[in-house]
Amino acid sequence: MYTINENYLKLQGSYLFSEIAKRVAAYKEAHPEADVIRLGIGDVTQPIAPAIIEALHKAVDEMGTPEGFRGYGPEQGYEFLRQAIVKNDYLARGCDISPEEIFVSDGAKCDVGNIQEIFGTDNTVAVCDPVYPVYVDTNVMAGRTGQFNPVTGGFDKLIYMPCTAENGFSPKLPEQAPDLIYLCFPNNPTGAAIRKDALQAWVDYANKNGSVILYDAAYEAYISEEGVPHSIYECEGARGCAIEMHSFSKNAGFTGLRLGYTVIPKDLVCNGTSLHSLWERRHGTRYNGAPYIVQRAGEAVYSEAGKAQLRKQVAYYMENARMIRDGLAQAGFTAYGGVNAPYIWLKTPEGMTSWDFFDRLLNEVQVVGTPGSGFGASGEGYFRLTAFGTHENTREAIKRIGRL
Amino acid sequence: MYTINENYLKLQGSYLFSEIAKRVAAYKEAHPEADVIRLGIGDVTQPIAPAIIEALHKAVDEMGTPEGFRGYGPEQGYEFLRQAIVKNDYLARGCDISPEEIFVSDGAKCDVGNIQEIFGTDNTVAVCDPVYPVYVDTNVMAGRTGQFNPVTGGFDKLIYMPCTAENGFSPKLPEQAPDLIYLCFPNNPTGAAIRKDALQAWVDYANKNGSVILYDAAYEAYISEEGVPHSIYECEGARGCAIEMHSFSKNAGFTGLRLGYTVIPKDLVCNGTSLHSLWERRHGTRYNGAPYIVQRAGEAVYSEAGKAQLRKQVAYYMENARMIRDGLAQAGFTAYGGVNAPYIWLKTPEGMTSWDFFDRLLNEVQVVGTPGSGFGASGEGYFRLTAFGTHENTREAIKRIGRL
Repeated sequence: MYTINENYLKLQGSYLFSEIAKRVAAYKEAHPEADVIRLGIGDVTQPIAPAIIEALHKAVDEMGTPEGFRGYGPEQGYEFLRQAIVKNDYLARGCDISPEEIFVSDGAKCDVGNIQEIFGTDNTVAVCDPVYPVYVDTNVMAGRTGQFNPVTGGFDKLIYMPCTAENGFSPKLPEQAPDLIYLCFPNNPTGAAIRKDALQAWVDYANKNGSVILYDAAYEAYISEEGVPHSIYECEGARGCAIEMHSFSKNAGFTGLRLGYTVIPKDLVCNGTSLHSLWERRHGTRYNGAPYIVQRAGEAVYSEAGKAQLRKQVAYYMENARMIRDGLAQAGFTAYGGVNAPYIWLKTPEGMTSWDFFDRLLNEVQVVGTPGSGFGASGEGYFRLTAFGTHENTREAIKRIGRL
Repeated sequence: MYTINENYLKLQGSYLFSEIAKRVAAYKEAHPEADVIRLGIGDVTQPIAPAIIEALHKAVDEMGTPEGFRGYGPEQGYEFLRQAIVKNDYLARGCDISPEEIFVSDGAKCDVGNIQEIFGTDNTVAVCDPVYPVYVDTNVMAGRTGQFNPVTGGFDKLIYMPCTAENGFSPKLPEQAPDLIYLCFPNNPTGAAIRKDALQAWVDYANKNGSVILYDAAYEAYISEEGVPHSIYECEGARGCAIEMHSFSKNAGFTGLRLGYTVIPKDLVCNGTSLHSLWERRHGTRYNGAPYIVQRAGEAVYSEAGKAQLRKQVAYYMENARMIRDGLAQAGFTAYGGVNAPYIWLKTPEGMTSWDFFDRLLNEVQVVGTPGSGFGASGEGYFRLTAFGTHENTREAIKRIGRL
């Protein structure tokens, strides 16, 4: 008789966003007339920019002709896209990354979930708390954690690095060095950014201790301040200790188009085996490349027209962030983030739990956000609002929250 | 210090098709003037059908408007596509499968590689020999095998089921029942089909022994004979023991568009845990859905216009298969397949090894095929040609092979 992967049974409840969707659906069924505004899930709302739509149409036309048709592409991604990525995201920032070190995929969520597979199951893993649940759950599934511990609110064996208002949402370097360290800056969910000197300290720490940093840079397009690095490779020595993951979802609205990439520098070597070669093997064996038409759309992200249109899109969302921050302050809330990130992280009033505040917002003013505790024990008492709505919805949501 | 997944070090050489690509590239560099015809990798050559191109353009336009824009979709796939799949691929064939049991993905290769994750690493695994390398390599990576054994030409602990001319390329039921059994019919690489009574015997065997059949149905569109099942769910009891994986690559030319699906019936339960719930959890945690525009393209595959256009496409390739079979017979080769599958599996002449025959075809007549031994030890002395070329190339390739 076959057996299942028992690690799955350690997972807690359903995935955070599924639970939110369920509660909203239940509310809407009970109140079909309600006008619910969603500032919860990190999904964008602006349509795909014209330069990208044009590139998509062109690529679709190619696929319909014998000369233009493209079948299986290179698993690692087309050269035209990897060149554009390197030129714009790395060389322009003084980072020494080559196209061979770029692996194009159908999104950062997949990469973030898959990357742990090339590491042994005996590695210790550190995550920020609160944290994007995918880092945790994929390591639970792979067996790198113990059981869920109701006392600590976390998984045994996993190293949680609390990020709270007390430490400015910036994790301390652990005394005992973990093998794998997940970092995400600008941060989901807290909206906190990291300064270059602070990130350099992480890189030095990883190099000193033989750790690998798995760096999620999905929100770098929202950085507005000087001195905040867009890539971990801006730090000296990062080529020897860091893997970086990027998304096209937040900077270009590709949540429904699906595109991302991962950078594995060839300097990352463990006892003579390069991580690049392992990931290349995984990519070649288990993946067949992102759709050609979507890769052409990705290329258009880096065109002059695309860049200009996307700067406007980011500015649009950041205007929402400003509205939310100002509105919350006026209403007497304490809130963080929203300056270098599209997320605002607020303290729940009167010591309410995150889910109680979720239910209150939904029931009393029909606004949906994300309970901080869904991101980890240290997220309890916090709540995430996103800047990805329309101006109209954001303004209305903030007006309603002001009435609470 | 972190560690790597040591199982990767057991993997042999590079992935088959990468090795072929390398040898062809080396040949072309040495002979830039050579006109090399590729009947090797199973990639299609006909452009995407007009009905599908039209659906793509329409969906791209939607993505460019505020009303039509779609962000994150349901991880399991849009209802419109899952409904179309169920109606056409299952209900029309008398198979009792519901839309909730369909999981849309970006291709069968990913599903085939990922599916093993929901099972324990202690399961015994059986594969046909020769076999599509992804089944083997993903289980090696997960640690379900021992080392590669140069004497047997296979991995220790893995159960190989030889498929040769002697048994009509149909594996025998193993005496000791494996926990997980990979079957692919019509078969890649041998081109063999399975009759319904033979497949029913596998289903009965799996149900009796508590095994799960992982059924790869990527080539079902090429079935031309009566009595050959298009889906394993045509067999009684398959809902209790079988997971089925489908591709849009071969029936509709989506190799560069990327779309597939997996069926997990809710009847598949292991000690109270449904495999459907495990896969749903995996899909939700590690995947973000196939692109909306590609799912609309998938829907068009099932439109009346799409079906008519794709029937012609399949007929086009099967005319190639007929040419190859007839040409090989005339040239004195012994060949199999090509009736219910786009693959022709030929016996190498004069006891040559598969790779020697590969090099001879490439060097002497500039035709690229796939060495049978690349699919497993029992593939040694065989060679795969595909029907996915153009008529012109196929005719020319066969003419050249006749000159050998």
